[in-house]
Amino acid sequence: MKQINVGLLGFGTVGSGVYRILNQHEEELKQRANATIKIKKILVNDIEKKRAVEVDQHVFTQSVDEVIADPDIDVVIEVMGGISEARDYILSALRHQKHVVTANKDLLALYSGELLTTAAENQCDLYYEASVAGGIPIIRSLVGGLASDRITKMMGIVNGTTNYILTRMTKEGADYQSVLEDAQALGFAESDPTGDVEGLDAARKMVILSTLGFSMKFELDHVTTEGISQITAQDIDYAKRLGYTIKLLGIAQHDACGVEISVQPSLLPNDHPLSSVNNEYNAVYIYGEAIGETMFYGPGAGQLPTATAVVSDLISVIQNKHMGVNGQGVVLPHNPTRLKSDKEIYSKYFLRFQLKDEAGAFSKVTALLGKYQMSIEKLIQHPLEQQQGVAEIVMTTHRTNRQAVNDVLSELQSLDVVYDVLSGYRIEGE
Amino acid sequence: MKQINVGLLGFGTVGSGVYRILNQHEEELKQRANATIKIKKILVNDIEKKRAVEVDQHVFTQSVDEVIADPDIDVVIEVMGGISEARDYILSALRHQKHVVTANKDLLALYSGELLTTAAENQCDLYYEASVAGGIPIIRSLVGGLASDRITKMMGIVNGTTNYILTRMTKEGADYQSVLEDAQALGFAESDPTGDVEGLDAARKMVILSTLGFSMKFELDHVTTEGISQITAQDIDYAKRLGYTIKLLGIAQHDACGVEISVQPSLLPNDHPLSSVNNEYNAVYIYGEAIGETMFYGPGAGQLPTATAVVSDLISVIQNKHMGVNGQGVVLPHNPTRLKSDKEIYSKYFLRFQLKDEAGAFSKVTALLGKYQMSIEKLIQHPLEQQQGVAEIVMTTHRTNRQAVNDVLSELQSLDVVYDVLSGYRIEGE
Repeated sequence: MKQINVGLLGFGTVGSGVYRILNQHEEELKQRANATIKIKKILVNDIEKKRAVEVDQHVFTQSVDEVIADPDIDVVIEVMGGISEARDYILSALRHQKHVVTANKDLLALYSGELLTTAAENQCDLYYEASVAGGIPIIRSLVGGLASDRITKMMGIVNGTTNYILTRMTKEGADYQSVLEDAQALGFAESDPTGDVEGLDAARKMVILSTLGFSMKFELDHVTTEGISQITAQDIDYAKRLGYTIKLLGIAQHDACGVEISVQPSLLPNDHPLSSVNNEYNAVYIYGEAIGETMFYGPGAGQLPTATAVVSDLISVIQNKHMGVNGQGVVLPHNPTRLKSDKEIYSKYFLRFQLKDEAGAFSKVTALLGKYQMSIEKLIQHPLEQQQGVAEIVMTTHRTNRQAVNDVLSELQSLDVVYDVLSGYRIEGE
Repeated sequence: MKQINVGLLGFGTVGSGVYRILNQHEEELKQRANATIKIKKILVNDIEKKRAVEVDQHVFTQSVDEVIADPDIDVVIEVMGGISEARDYILSALRHQKHVVTANKDLLALYSGELLTTAAENQCDLYYEASVAGGIPIIRSLVGGLASDRITKMMGIVNGTTNYILTRMTKEGADYQSVLEDAQALGFAESDPTGDVEGLDAARKMVILSTLGFSMKFELDHVTTEGISQITAQDIDYAKRLGYTIKLLGIAQHDACGVEISVQPSLLPNDHPLSSVNNEYNAVYIYGEAIGETMFYGPGAGQLPTATAVVSDLISVIQNKHMGVNGQGVVLPHNPTRLKSDKEIYSKYFLRFQLKDEAGAFSKVTALLGKYQMSIEKLIQHPLEQQQGVAEIVMTTHRTNRQAVNDVLSELQSLDVVYDVLSGYRIEGE
């Protein structure tokens, strides 16, 4: 039986998960891969460090060349994270004719074009299932099962931390700040949570999904990104009263005008399947022209789910190797990129603001809405307890464009009858 | 550019859907397949029949040999349905070195072993994504993305007709019979609905999923099957009061004792993701040792979803052809089959029966439960309006085995204090 030698770059959570799966499922993997899999070298910063997993000391190395330049190593698994070094190492590994499996979404979101081109030039595989929604085989599905359909829209809950926070805020009626602190204490949020809570992590994943789904090149700054730190318990409560759940939603849409990619807090009807994706779970909801609506649900992160995705990719590389077809599956974007302007992006909206209790106040608001052809679908008005003479207004609009909403929100702020403008969220899934 | 010639067996709903997709998405498919795809021959019963799709008359044939024995045809797509003829044609096509794509779950559930072996012997591909949950790439995920994990359990809503009926019964509080008649009028149920409503169709799909997920050979009669025709509006109402939704669930479980496959009405907690799979939608919920819980959701049938799955398989065949690896992906079951007995199958249960209002009646029931080590978790008792001196009892049990439940239900029936035994359903997803 053939032996496949693997080199690991990094031995943190995911790396040691890969090691554990390769050991624990050794027999089954041997059958599936029709090969024995051996981890020959592992690049680490500190060879002496105590580790939870027991590994032969001489497998560790501090020299990257012992991994990526070793002629005996067939596949390099990059699980070190970070961008600059990881990029150099992967490019160098590919140029040394190593197949590469990576879980690095930050890197993929920025350099997938360069990495995939280099892989193709060197007849090497480059797989990255673990980079988006770890436990969900979504990349594979976009490349394979949905390949004969035209994907028109993807909606994703693709960040576990923000979904955990929003789920708890929704279930407990709690405030953002207190849930965030609790999530940090429990290890569901990092001590610097910015990348998660401001939507950047989700934006990276949406770039990767959109590139594959629409076969176009996208950059991170093509994504309009808004996080969850401004969401209040009141927003969630009003949404509930109107039959909606608030989620941080990545949206990628493609129509005749072009493509929109965005990440923002959005309201979904309570009976939409994405509304019951709770806690740290992820899901991607896909609209295909022929297939209609499908959803992929699963753990978005975690040691074993992510490591499982990495090992599945590894098995694919080995199967390709048996068949002598490595590098032939690399798909480069083949459509020209065309982004929509804010005026071309339509949806319904949820607006919330505070209005002075004066004669003619509401008609000034409706005049402003009229100016932008925006019309009201539902409305809740009630007097503010803590502020005499001020009423809170919550409304949902009919479909309108993003430019109009931005203009209305900023003009509302400068109307003399408006006390405060609180929120403007998109409504999706209706 | 290479031309791939395709022969269709059958030109009903799915067949004409395949034809439409190949035409409408011609350019994209050409790019993805790196080949032009031509439908050269279509086997039909009646060449003269008027059809919704316009097709060159000379493409139709009534002779199967013009499809499966034509040396120019590369791939045969079987979408005629039925078992005996379809089996003969596919076997013959494989022996003529044609790759085969089929949507035929009835056939696969009975003869997958024979068909896959014949495919492997002839270095041919045999793909069947469309046979289970049309629009959901579940087969591909079991073969690919989840391949490095050990699957321990699959729960599936895999029949659209029954899910549509149960959804409407749940939402409207309506009776089975009236919803069924309405579903028949609307085309969601066939005029003879037996195969759907008695769980047979779901059982076939569970055989296909289990064979792949556990890599064992299964027969249709390994599946304990119960349909939905006995479910009443009262069952659904009581389940609701206890926080559950009733679904027709296919369950396949694998542990150290062996495998259980069954299809039966089951109660799921309302916040379980499968509970919000409504109408004709399907979903498969998978437990993997490493990956944890994932769910695949989408349309279970329908012309275009099913045809999309067929075309995706066709693209895979063509890609394999370019790489010269057809037939190498065929995976035959490699584990010995070991089925569990009813005594080894554990879950919680929902029981409903009517008890005479006599002194000591309830203690006879608890004595019976005690005899089988069955204990009560929740209980609702209330007097029956339409029958003086009789109370209705609804209870949920703690985990117990199927043999005990069957024994209790049959002994309850013969207790003199019991007026009637109404239902015994499994509880899952807790």
